[in-house]
Amino acid sequence: MKFGGTSMAGTERIRRVARIVQRQQAAGHEVAVVVSAMSGETDRLVNFCREADPLYDPAEYDVVVAAGEQVTSGLLAMHLQALGSKARSWLGWQLPIHTDDAHAKARIESIDSDALLASMAAGEIAVIPGFQGLTGDNRITTLGRGGSDTSAVAVAAAIKADRCDIYTDVDGVYTTDPRIVAKARKLKSVTYEEMLELASVGSKVLQTRSVGLAMKEGVRVQVLSSFIDDDAPAADTIPGTMIVSDEELAKFQEGLDMERQLITGIAADKNEAKVTLTRVPDRPGAVAAIFSPLAAANINVDMIIQNIAKDKGETDVTFTVPGADLARTQALLEGQKEAIGYYRMISDGKVAKISVVGVGMKSHAGVASTMFRSLADRGINIQAISTSEIKVSVLIDEDETELAVRVLHTAYGLDAKDEAA
Amino acid sequence: MKFGGTSMAGTERIRRVARIVQRQQAAGHEVAVVVSAMSGETDRLVNFCREADPLYDPAEYDVVVAAGEQVTSGLLAMHLQALGSKARSWLGWQLPIHTDDAHAKARIESIDSDALLASMAAGEIAVIPGFQGLTGDNRITTLGRGGSDTSAVAVAAAIKADRCDIYTDVDGVYTTDPRIVAKARKLKSVTYEEMLELASVGSKVLQTRSVGLAMKEGVRVQVLSSFIDDDAPAADTIPGTMIVSDEELAKFQEGLDMERQLITGIAADKNEAKVTLTRVPDRPGAVAAIFSPLAAANINVDMIIQNIAKDKGETDVTFTVPGADLARTQALLEGQKEAIGYYRMISDGKVAKISVVGVGMKSHAGVASTMFRSLADRGINIQAISTSEIKVSVLIDEDETELAVRVLHTAYGLDAKDEAA
Repeated sequence: MKFGGTSMAGTERIRRVARIVQRQQAAGHEVAVVVSAMSGETDRLVNFCREADPLYDPAEYDVVVAAGEQVTSGLLAMHLQALGSKARSWLGWQLPIHTDDAHAKARIESIDSDALLASMAAGEIAVIPGFQGLTGDNRITTLGRGGSDTSAVAVAAAIKADRCDIYTDVDGVYTTDPRIVAKARKLKSVTYEEMLELASVGSKVLQTRSVGLAMKEGVRVQVLSSFIDDDAPAADTIPGTMIVSDEELAKFQEGLDMERQLITGIAADKNEAKVTLTRVPDRPGAVAAIFSPLAAANINVDMIIQNIAKDKGETDVTFTVPGADLARTQALLEGQKEAIGYYRMISDGKVAKISVVGVGMKSHAGVASTMFRSLADRGINIQAISTSEIKVSVLIDEDETELAVRVLHTAYGLDAKDEAA
Repeated sequence: MKFGGTSMAGTERIRRVARIVQRQQAAGHEVAVVVSAMSGETDRLVNFCREADPLYDPAEYDVVVAAGEQVTSGLLAMHLQALGSKARSWLGWQLPIHTDDAHAKARIESIDSDALLASMAAGEIAVIPGFQGLTGDNRITTLGRGGSDTSAVAVAAAIKADRCDIYTDVDGVYTTDPRIVAKARKLKSVTYEEMLELASVGSKVLQTRSVGLAMKEGVRVQVLSSFIDDDAPAADTIPGTMIVSDEELAKFQEGLDMERQLITGIAADKNEAKVTLTRVPDRPGAVAAIFSPLAAANINVDMIIQNIAKDKGETDVTFTVPGADLARTQALLEGQKEAIGYYRMISDGKVAKISVVGVGMKSHAGVASTMFRSLADRGINIQAISTSEIKVSVLIDEDETELAVRVLHTAYGLDAKDEAA
């Protein structure tokens, strides 16, 4: 079970979490719980670090920010004990959770689970701070913001858990953002691949890394709401969204999800920016000259469109980068103008990427053309297209985001049926 | 060097501390720094624990409260790096600082100093969170409130430091509380024994345990103010108070402290309560019947006066306990009334213990009689007396505390000379 910062914000909320955890134990499960810091606490600690040294040492940053989860793990253990359960905290360095030494963005390498399993088998609920680990030379690491989801999946894999329940602010994964489409439906199940695509295009339910790890390790992840009633039954019977493999999905669809569609969900991401370089020489190496400096600067280029070469041996190259990296991208390419030999750079931060995602499209043609036609019918101009096996993304004007999502949600038959119907 | 919570409260203050530390390094020293949590932080964390479980598990309490010092140690290392020094934090479990497993009040057993010394020899300033350690089975301990002074002395002993500088809210040890006696003088040096007696009778400059440890390990401790000017010279030349052995004291007195008096200081402690049991049977075992249950309940009995047995084979027994333990003491003795066989229990929380302390009294008679006469001359009634080799304490009415301290400060010639004289 994993609880985020909102669920751990203060005594009353931690007590609620303790009751939810205890009920899970009472239902016959051995339980390990991964917790985030109280909401706001990590920001407070990060600010202290920035004030101390704008170019702070990431190793010391990890010492400071890991304290937030240390506090909540100890407190949840106490709350569980107060309710009569046996419980203890296991800090990242105590298990330990081995990571590489990339401080502030470490990757988990392995988790020693012997002591943990012995404690759980003896009836103790294990409380583990998320987000933290230990390097080979005995120093604290953290996994990067949102890393607690990854910790939870890694622990679940290490102890071969039946399930990894991630309690969040939302009660599951929806066909699209319910704030945009009132008729969005909660999905009973999605595949890892779908969840990865949804996460990568702006659905903020789970950290992308955690989904990738779950897929690699075959951990069944359930997303469900931490705002359930205190008296609600154990999580086994609460309908969240299960994230599973393709094979398992078939099983779920049988019993639970008869209405499953070709398309699983629609995501919108407004954090992209579009850059076009005009009249780039159409010769080998020209494209590398553009993207190598961006890669070296750790700027993640997403969609790339190269127009068909014109008569003059020149071509226009358009691509997208995260909006936060636009200024750095512009500065880098300005400096490379001679080397690349382009004519003009045109940037646009007011774009949105709309993606339709679904494993169903592997075996069905026509998904993309439905998308293009539906958008064209409403006069929405497509500026760029990219596709993967289970995703089609288009770049459009940011102002048309909500309209596009609603149009596509209806076009793919995702709208919830009217209750009265 | 050790800095308390007031010195570590926020970015600006930690930066000041970093400058003070760096100046010490610039003066040619290898430096280890022990830090407390930001002032208020430990209280905040303790409150979370109490809210979680009034009977909280001390092992989990230690996990929670140790986070406060973890944060400040990482931050101070960053601040030092920002000023251009090499620095790193060493948490209690990283060194490790080995303690027993008495959670929330652990005792330090040993400190592994090899890695620490190697790091310091390489020019790194070591930043160590105070108050925390590690049990044999790899769990976090804390040393009890105020334990950071003890951590500092223990680290100084482990690395065989030339000196342990403890920066506090005050700029040294005074002949008495300057808020009571305007003419109190700062002492240039005191012995461990004197400091222990002063601490045990209410002088709050240093934690008693830290002084006992310094004496045992022969660590020279300097108390000095953390509120010195940013541009002040390194601590070598700042006049704090040195706490040293008897033998070293002679050396200090020669060069520095020609005006040293028979009596070093006068302390007042209003946190005592007096209990009298009347008509206790005057037979073997009667006194044991009173004090055994108190010892079993961890109640620290200080002064004990047994009046001369009266004709009837009965005696009155008076003793003092910490004011905070008075209610428990009363309840315990109420329950033992039959077993002890006393007639009445009379309690008084409005008493104060006044102590005069000084190694000089070992070789000089008349210290106690000066005390009794001076108090009697002002009409102050003495309710009880206790003495040690270097201390005489009397119990008086709490309302007469300040008067008594001033009278004695003058009587023993401790008043500072008028500047103009």
